Order: sequence, then structure tokens, then C-alpha cells
Amino acid sequence: MITVALPKGALLKDAIRLLQSVGLDFSAFLDSANRQLQISDPTNTAKALLVRAQDVPVYVEYGQAHLGIVGYDVLREKKPQVAQLIDLKFGYCRLSVAVKASSPYRSALELSPNSRVASKFVHCAHDYFQSLDLPVEIIPLYGSVELGPITGMSEAIVDLVSSGKTLRENGLIETDILFESTARLIAHPLSYRTNTGNLHDWIEKLRAASLVSA
Amino acid sequence: MITVALPKGALLKDAIRLLQSVGLDFSAFLDSANRQLQISDPTNTAKALLVRAQDVPVYVEYGQAHLGIVGYDVLREKKPQVAQLIDLKFGYCRLSVAVKASSPYRSALELSPNSRVASKFVHCAHDYFQSLDLPVEIIPLYGSVELGPITGMSEAIVDLVSSGKTLRENGLIETDILFESTARLIAHPLSYRTNTGNLHDWIEKLRAASLVSA
Repeated sequence: MITVALPKGALLKDAIRLLQSVGLDFSAFLDSANRQLQISDPTNTAKALLVRAQDVPVYVEYGQAHLGIVGYDVLREKKPQVAQLIDLKFGYCRLSVAVKASSPYRSALELSPNSRVASKFVHCAHDYFQSLDLPVEIIPLYGSVELGPITGMSEAIVDLVSSGKTLRENGLIETDILFESTARLIAHPLSYRTNTGNLHDWIEKLRAASLVSA
Repeated sequence: MITVALPKGALLKDAIRLLQSVGLDFSAFLDSANRQLQISDPTNTAKALLVRAQDVPVYVEYGQAHLGIVGYDVLREKKPQVAQLIDLKFGYCRLSVAVKASSPYRSALELSPNSRVASKFVHCAHDYFQSLDLPVEIIPLYGSVELGPITGMSEAIVDLVSSGKTLRENGLIETDILFESTARLIAHPLSYRTNTGNLHDWIEKLRAASLVSA
């Protein structure tokens, strides 16, 4: 029996819809009364784990899940040892630099060296500013990164943007896009190589289904 | 005008009650329709920031907030450069080692070297097992740490326990207590030293109020 790690949050609905289209029904996770973090599909063909998006690659890396669905943003930030198999196309967002609209900055390159940049994506932010040869101080935050520039703690932020509504509501504008992100199907490398539980069949079914729905 | 950083989540209600008792009303944060992360009290005496618990010490360390209320657990894990002023006594919990009740282990010392321990508190967990001279692999997770032993990914977890209900529901038992935690009042060291905005007066009022309510 294969196990799939699914991310709580924005990608969950589309991930469950995709799995349903190949005959694996984990819609019980969408029931707001559900408290279970581990369920089997009604045909007892597969199991699913419901975990934080950042934890999906952990369960896959350690082989507790053979497959996982997770945003490319998480893979870029955490660089887990997993096989990246399919771009599932849903869950589009981008990791961007943003500054106060009232600031003089219209590009990350215009920031002064030693500027402060608040982010949940500390590795991505660090790598990006290093690629610009611009030494900045990254301030690690866990949430509401937009408060960084609002309170004056940081000149800029590096954060996920989808509609841009949060930025606009907080008087911020996007200046640079680090990368675009969509949901990805990932696999435990050893299980993939040894085709545990006919993993390859499931992957091909998911590939076909994701092409149809894209 | 002083600024206080307040943590979203379990400590918020008691933190707001404490501030109300010294004349600072930030109860607007408790309104479920509230979307603001930064408000002034009705008398315009102080401002409050509503941020993730882990971010409270960051705003205080950088001086964007003069004071902050946060759990001792966060201070132990992140070791921020802030002044720890008052044990506010509310928000009791403890950081504990837990294992499957069905396992043979009844103490962390009984785990094999190279066991895996899942935790959100990677530094605390690492330091604790190092103090036991027991080399284990810490698996960093962001949520639902109890899934570690359930899925077989880890032999043990290090996690916050308050009532113990989550452990019991998941067939886990507590074996070791790393430390106990309550809410703390913290201050930006420089603001505290220079008594910015009569900080010392506010701190004494809060000390008196916390003694009354304790």
C-alpha cells in the first residue's frame, strides 16, 4: 500500500481532486470536523498523511510517505533529498521582493548594502541577494512578513505573492520575482527506484490526470 | 508612545487581560473580524503589534517593540537578545519527551543512540539529548509532531504538553520534562536601559498587576 503526504492549506483541495481523478478518495480530509491526520482511501489501496506543507518533504525524504504533493517554494527553501517528478500546474504563486510603495526603491538592486530584509524564506532570500552581490541582513519571521516594512524593522521583504492583495492592502509593491511556484509531485528516491507498491503506475496515472486538468 | 508585541494564539487572551488591568486596552485584537496587525489603545498611550509567538522576540530584539509577551519555550528555543523581566505565570505548559505507550521506553535515556526524535524545538531537543550524552538524530517538523512515532518516522518526540490530551489521543506517553514554561514579559535591552517612554513605570505596573492576578 502506498502512502501519500498531503499539505494542509492552499494546495489541499486541488491535491485531493487530483488523487480522486486516479481513483484515490481522500476527501475526508476536507471535512472541517475531521481530526485524523492519517487515513486510508475507501478501497484500502492507499494511505494519506495530512501534514504542514513544510513537513511534506520530510515524510517523503524519510520514506514514511512514498509520494508527496508540495509547492515548489517549499522545495526551493528546504532542498530536501526527494525526487521531483511532475509539475502539477495548480497552486500558482511567486516568491517576490516587495518594498513600501512610498519608498524610493523600485528594484532590489536599489537597496543599500546592509539593508534589512524580512522573510519566511531565509535561504531563498539569502541566495537571491547574494546573487545580486548585495549584502543584506535577513530577518527570519514566521508570519505576517508585511509588518517588517510597516513597522520600519526592514526595508524590504521576500514573500509569496499570489493575487497581490495582501501587498496592496499594506501599501507594498513587488519589485523582483525570485521564482514562480506551482505544486509538485515528489517521491522517496529509493521507493521510486525500486518501484515499491507499483509506484511507477501511480505516477503515470497522476501525470496523465494532471495533463487533462491543466 | 511605547509599543508592545503580542503573540497570536494561546497566550493572547491573558496577555490582553493583563494589559487592560494597567489601563491599556487592546481587546480589539480579540474580535474575530479584526484584520489589523497594529493598533493603538483607545487613549493613544501605547501601540500593540499582533504577531506569531516566535516573532515576538524578533520585534523586541530589533526595537520595533519596546515590550513583548511571549512563552518561555520560545525564548529557550530562539535565545534572542532581549531582557527577560517578569514571569507572568499564565500560559503554563512544559516541553517534554514522549514516546509510544506501546514502546519499551519509559525514559529518554533508554532510547538507542541514533534514535530519531521529531520536534519543532530542534535546539532544545538537541541540547537535551546532548546533556544526556545520547547522540540522536533530530527531525525538524513544523506541526503535528505526534505523527512522527505514529508513522514510525521517529522513536520519540520533543513537544509542548499542557493538558496531555493530544498525547493520550495519539497513544503517546510523556517520559521526560525538559523544562516548564509560562508567559514572560520581555524588553528591548536599550529601551529598558534608557527608560524610553517611561518604560520602567509600565514594567512596574505590569509587575504589580501580574502579582494580583497570579
